[in-house]
Amino acid sequence: MKLTKLPLVAALSLLVLSSNVWAQSTKRLIDEVNPFIGTSNFGTTNPGAVVPNGLMSITPFNVSGSPELNKFDKDKRWWSTPYTADNKFFSGFSHVNLSGVGCPELGSIIVSASAGDLDVDYTHYGSAMSEEKAHPGYYSVQLDKHKIKAEVTATQRTAVSAFTFERGGKSNILVNLGLGLTNESGATVRFLNDSTIVGSKLMGTFCYAPQAVFNQYFAIRISRRAPASGYWKKQPPMEGVEAEWDKDQGKYKIYPTYRKEISGNDIGVWFSYDTKPGETIYVQTGVSFVSEENALLNLTTEQPKLDFAAVRRAAEDSWEKALRVVEVEGGTTDQRKIFYTALYHLLIHPNILQDVNGQYPMMGSLQTATTKHDRYTVYSLWDTYRNVHPLLSILYPRKQLAMVETMLDMYKEGGWLPKWELYGQETFTMEGDPSIIVINDTWQRGIRDFDTKLAYEAMLKGATTPGKDNKLRPDFDDYASRGYVPLREKFDNSVSHALEYYIADWNLSQFASAMGKKKDAQLFARRASGYKHYYDKETGLLRPILPDGKFLTPFHPTLGRDFEPNPGFHEGNSWNYSFYVPHDIRGLAKLMGGERKFVDKLQSVFDKENYDPANEPDIAYPYLFTYFPKEAWRTQRITSKLLGLYYRNDPSGIPGNDDTGAMSAWAIFSMLGFYPDCPGSMSYGLTTPTFDKVTIHLDTKYYKNPTLVIETRPVDEHTNRQRIYFDEFQIGNKLYKNTYRINHDELMNAGKITFFTKLVGGTPEITVD
Amino acid sequence: MKLTKLPLVAALSLLVLSSNVWAQSTKRLIDEVNPFIGTSNFGTTNPGAVVPNGLMSITPFNVSGSPELNKFDKDKRWWSTPYTADNKFFSGFSHVNLSGVGCPELGSIIVSASAGDLDVDYTHYGSAMSEEKAHPGYYSVQLDKHKIKAEVTATQRTAVSAFTFERGGKSNILVNLGLGLTNESGATVRFLNDSTIVGSKLMGTFCYAPQAVFNQYFAIRISRRAPASGYWKKQPPMEGVEAEWDKDQGKYKIYPTYRKEISGNDIGVWFSYDTKPGETIYVQTGVSFVSEENALLNLTTEQPKLDFAAVRRAAEDSWEKALRVVEVEGGTTDQRKIFYTALYHLLIHPNILQDVNGQYPMMGSLQTATTKHDRYTVYSLWDTYRNVHPLLSILYPRKQLAMVETMLDMYKEGGWLPKWELYGQETFTMEGDPSIIVINDTWQRGIRDFDTKLAYEAMLKGATTPGKDNKLRPDFDDYASRGYVPLREKFDNSVSHALEYYIADWNLSQFASAMGKKKDAQLFARRASGYKHYYDKETGLLRPILPDGKFLTPFHPTLGRDFEPNPGFHEGNSWNYSFYVPHDIRGLAKLMGGERKFVDKLQSVFDKENYDPANEPDIAYPYLFTYFPKEAWRTQRITSKLLGLYYRNDPSGIPGNDDTGAMSAWAIFSMLGFYPDCPGSMSYGLTTPTFDKVTIHLDTKYYKNPTLVIETRPVDEHTNRQRIYFDEFQIGNKLYKNTYRINHDELMNAGKITFFTKLVGGTPEITVD
Repeated sequence: MKLTKLPLVAALSLLVLSSNVWAQSTKRLIDEVNPFIGTSNFGTTNPGAVVPNGLMSITPFNVSGSPELNKFDKDKRWWSTPYTADNKFFSGFSHVNLSGVGCPELGSIIVSASAGDLDVDYTHYGSAMSEEKAHPGYYSVQLDKHKIKAEVTATQRTAVSAFTFERGGKSNILVNLGLGLTNESGATVRFLNDSTIVGSKLMGTFCYAPQAVFNQYFAIRISRRAPASGYWKKQPPMEGVEAEWDKDQGKYKIYPTYRKEISGNDIGVWFSYDTKPGETIYVQTGVSFVSEENALLNLTTEQPKLDFAAVRRAAEDSWEKALRVVEVEGGTTDQRKIFYTALYHLLIHPNILQDVNGQYPMMGSLQTATTKHDRYTVYSLWDTYRNVHPLLSILYPRKQLAMVETMLDMYKEGGWLPKWELYGQETFTMEGDPSIIVINDTWQRGIRDFDTKLAYEAMLKGATTPGKDNKLRPDFDDYASRGYVPLREKFDNSVSHALEYYIADWNLSQFASAMGKKKDAQLFARRASGYKHYYDKETGLLRPILPDGKFLTPFHPTLGRDFEPNPGFHEGNSWNYSFYVPHDIRGLAKLMGGERKFVDKLQSVFDKENYDPANEPDIAYPYLFTYFPKEAWRTQRITSKLLGLYYRNDPSGIPGNDDTGAMSAWAIFSMLGFYPDCPGSMSYGLTTPTFDKVTIHLDTKYYKNPTLVIETRPVDEHTNRQRIYFDEFQIGNKLYKNTYRINHDELMNAGKITFFTKLVGGTPEITVD
Repeated sequence: MKLTKLPLVAALSLLVLSSNVWAQSTKRLIDEVNPFIGTSNFGTTNPGAVVPNGLMSITPFNVSGSPELNKFDKDKRWWSTPYTADNKFFSGFSHVNLSGVGCPELGSIIVSASAGDLDVDYTHYGSAMSEEKAHPGYYSVQLDKHKIKAEVTATQRTAVSAFTFERGGKSNILVNLGLGLTNESGATVRFLNDSTIVGSKLMGTFCYAPQAVFNQYFAIRISRRAPASGYWKKQPPMEGVEAEWDKDQGKYKIYPTYRKEISGNDIGVWFSYDTKPGETIYVQTGVSFVSEENALLNLTTEQPKLDFAAVRRAAEDSWEKALRVVEVEGGTTDQRKIFYTALYHLLIHPNILQDVNGQYPMMGSLQTATTKHDRYTVYSLWDTYRNVHPLLSILYPRKQLAMVETMLDMYKEGGWLPKWELYGQETFTMEGDPSIIVINDTWQRGIRDFDTKLAYEAMLKGATTPGKDNKLRPDFDDYASRGYVPLREKFDNSVSHALEYYIADWNLSQFASAMGKKKDAQLFARRASGYKHYYDKETGLLRPILPDGKFLTPFHPTLGRDFEPNPGFHEGNSWNYSFYVPHDIRGLAKLMGGERKFVDKLQSVFDKENYDPANEPDIAYPYLFTYFPKEAWRTQRITSKLLGLYYRNDPSGIPGNDDTGAMSAWAIFSMLGFYPDCPGSMSYGLTTPTFDKVTIHLDTKYYKNPTLVIETRPVDEHTNRQRIYFDEFQIGNKLYKNTYRINHDELMNAGKITFFTKLVGGTPEITVD
């Protein structure tokens, strides 16, 4: 590559940009977040209040109780989110929610308010909702039926709701412990004093994990002592003379005086007032996954007094601080909103689990232990190892370190690294051995101040334990002896399993090398190349193998779209998986007949609608063209198209489940211009960045330079809007031409990288509107 | 009266009896108790293990789950007992039960065992039962399906069950927290350690009291650590795709690993073993109505180690000691069993409520307080004021004192004396102001070491609080202003209410006199004569009065049998109530036209089947003839007949609900030969005793003589079996002829009273087979 002069236009634009920087830095980045993005189209994000990686999230619940006002009902179909922008029947605010997942869980402890006589049936007290406003750390809505303005904000482990009764008069606060998104059931609650209740509700059965159950403890404090309050409980139905006698049977029974524990499937607590017009009643809620006591301690520690405005301010400040790690300039309003909302969604999960005293439920046993670092939970690792953790390592390395430390603690506690961990329970959702990848990737990025010896031991356990004792790799024996996993049951996802083991073992090989374990490194590297077993020359794709060693016949490569069951592949078809050998793209290309055939086949994935922008195995596909510089314009064209098509500043602006940030991380990387298409490898595929300038503030504990600036300048007369392609970039005085991959260290240490964009890419016939 | 010589035959029999005394005193009285008496025919007593006035009772539960083996199902009809001798499908042992009541309550925390694979559905693990044995403090049964011998015994606050798995192999212990007699629902439970669980279940809705709810806390310890254990919970049903996905929906879900709290409507805990043939597994259970901690403390204090035999021995010893207060000689085996079983049933309720540390749930609030005396609960006072408390005062005055002290504490705590108190909650079941009567009666009997000033204050509250604030006398205003309660609603039991107020106010008048409150005494005495308002000359009966002061017309004096609704009268007809003026029988007789007319009318009650032997207002009727010496033979004949007809040594040997001992107390008094037909008056009606000799050991703290001996000797040649009538009795050297009533002090101080029996009574034509 040869150094060339900076184009004049670019030099001039620097002056303009400088003043922009100042203007933008006084503007709050939180105003660029639109929490409604992803709240439709199965994005399954929530618009409610949460702080970065907070245990508490509080969000409107509107997925039950009204066929008229709701388009979707949580019980009438597969449904995994407490809120959707498509619905308009508000039942309350749920406390602690999952963002961007595909299975129903949590979304419970639902607090609401009503005007008029007490009615504890949420299908009655629920209300049409309007005038929704969502902002990081804050959400508000108008409850039309009751003329109540409802606002919420949050701290790390607590929330506060403000219900303003505009008309005054008979007013109620309702804490519903029966309704909820989780498919588990049963709660217990008691009055601690007139205005404080504590209790717990069982959560769990996430995805295919009936045994991953855990209690959510809560402490709820009401700002005004209620003249009347009590419990309710739906009573089991009776028959005959008993039914005649027990007026409450089959109905919601009201308990106006009882104050000790009440337990059951469908219970709640109410507080009734006579309010003045415009009076506000606040509900402060602390949660814990250890105990009621801790829920209360969290509440009294994080909200020692009632101050909604102060909590909101602190929540906004914490978001502002977190978002300001990346400052963007230029781009459209929508692009900035998409970007910062994606960054916002990146910082929802994993979330902290420990209480203010450091206590948390231990992996597997849920017994209480105390942590010194942040203890994280909600590890959707099959989703997140690919891009979420690499991105966290870049932007928030201290968080990432604590996440790795947490994973090692889980190994110590439960005997295994996590796969899909949820509040101290392993759900065993999805497949593979993803922790290996996350830990190696983190280490490779220079975040190494964790117990590497323990990490290696933990990684080896999943990678070497034979037989059924291997909880992470249930088909270990086949895999280790054959180098692949044969299809032993019709829908056993065998190919998906093996592909995950290959990338895991490739990472383990890297880590073993780093640890000086050469022999191990060789073993795992050998294993990682086992994907070749699946390559079927006939179709040019990966194809399931039967126990007798023969390929599955007949074989339908396109079968498996839209969660259709498909032999050998999980939530996808052969096309979605056939390029998923991120650690050996060149080897795969060779297998497929060389660059041309590989590129054509890869291009056909996009042309023939075999690309699923919302399923992880293929989301790095657009970047695979960068291995072949002549074809890299395809990456640029496709990422630009995908960003435009699937990432939008509206509720359906995420292509599918956000997958605890994986979709958002894809958007962030793609908008920044680089993508870690092989986690654990320190090589990125490049694409054209979205913004004129991005300043990433790096943590100097881990990175040499305090900032990485990514600049994008048109080299010709075209407007930014049409800026899709680049084939030159510059670092320091060095101009790179026809280079479309970059090494992590080089990028992180660049200080500044400048992309020079132009109207057309490698093929002049391509234009984009 | 003139002293006569003892008949020779009687003198001779003394020698015989003396040796009998010795023989009997080495024989255990507990062997004379048949706990199955009253377990059919709606006696609603239980055959399980309990100690005298113990908080814990543990009894087989067999009233649900099998239409084949059970004649009665708790949910198919009105049903108020966990066990009936008519049923044969055993579901487990329920911990804490009510004895002799007419509404369903408690009868929960049901522990059982099964052999074979774990199945937590009690309709499956329940078993045919056989070889039942019941003995005070002990019960055993064979579970035919599983070849398990199940035995139970109890301490005051704990129980221990022994399950012997005769065949060994797969064996399970099952703790069912869903099933139960109570109409309340919802429980919570958690593992404290591998072999101990603690939790609580809500009880309540007794009779017409939906708000009288309270938690029963428990701690359960298993003798052998189980290789496998966990929870179960009936999951709510789902529909559609959710139902397909969640294999547990609508079923009993098993939780084999989760150990923190679980809550719900229908939950349980299981422990599974591989037992050796003949191996016994023990389940120790502590209960408390204060807290889980106290349940555990009760368990560890009363059963510091596992020793079934020692617990059983102690339980038997405590019964032996309690029963030995009365020693009988002679009579048939059945008569002795009937007598001692009645005494046994007398000592079930009220039962203690406080934990070993003295803590108990306070009246109304259920907040925790600490007591120094025994704190009692289960005050079915409308039933018990008439004869249970007078009998307790005679036989167990210290218990009675603590019961009165408890009532006064309830007043201090809840603001009112109890009416029908249940575990710290007032159920307001039945009518009247019965505490006044109990307290005055106790005081009149010389048990006076309670706070009489407070007692008087408490009595006055019910007797003088106007309007709706009067919780005990809801129709106080009418009563106070008119002297009677008019019929304001069709079935408002107005006459029954007023009759209860009269006897209460008569007692209050007595107590006021004793306290030196002459004016008050006059006021209440005047009120007590208000019954005359109801006397209808036309029918010669008490008749409801309408608000305009006119009698209810039409009037059906026989309407109201078998719980048929009846204007003015509660659970009875006018005949059952018209003689219920116990404090003024002579006044009533005068009103009715004099002795002859009174006696004829009273006799017609028996002749025309208007007498209900199981309903309290008329159960003293047989003794009312004793007010008229010439007619007293009727008392003797009727009591003899009633005892023979309704009190038998078999499950249906109590005429109806035992009413927490009221039926049993009637039998005891009647068999002893005297009856307190007017509680609060120290006068007894006499009848012919059942036994040759009875020795009552009196508490010399309250009674001058350490014993009262009641001797019964035939004066002619007839056998004991035909001994029905007497018209002479002797105290010391004094022979009483044609005397059929006796004063309390005279009797208690007698040392010995001897009845001389003969074949015929006042009318020679009467014979009894």
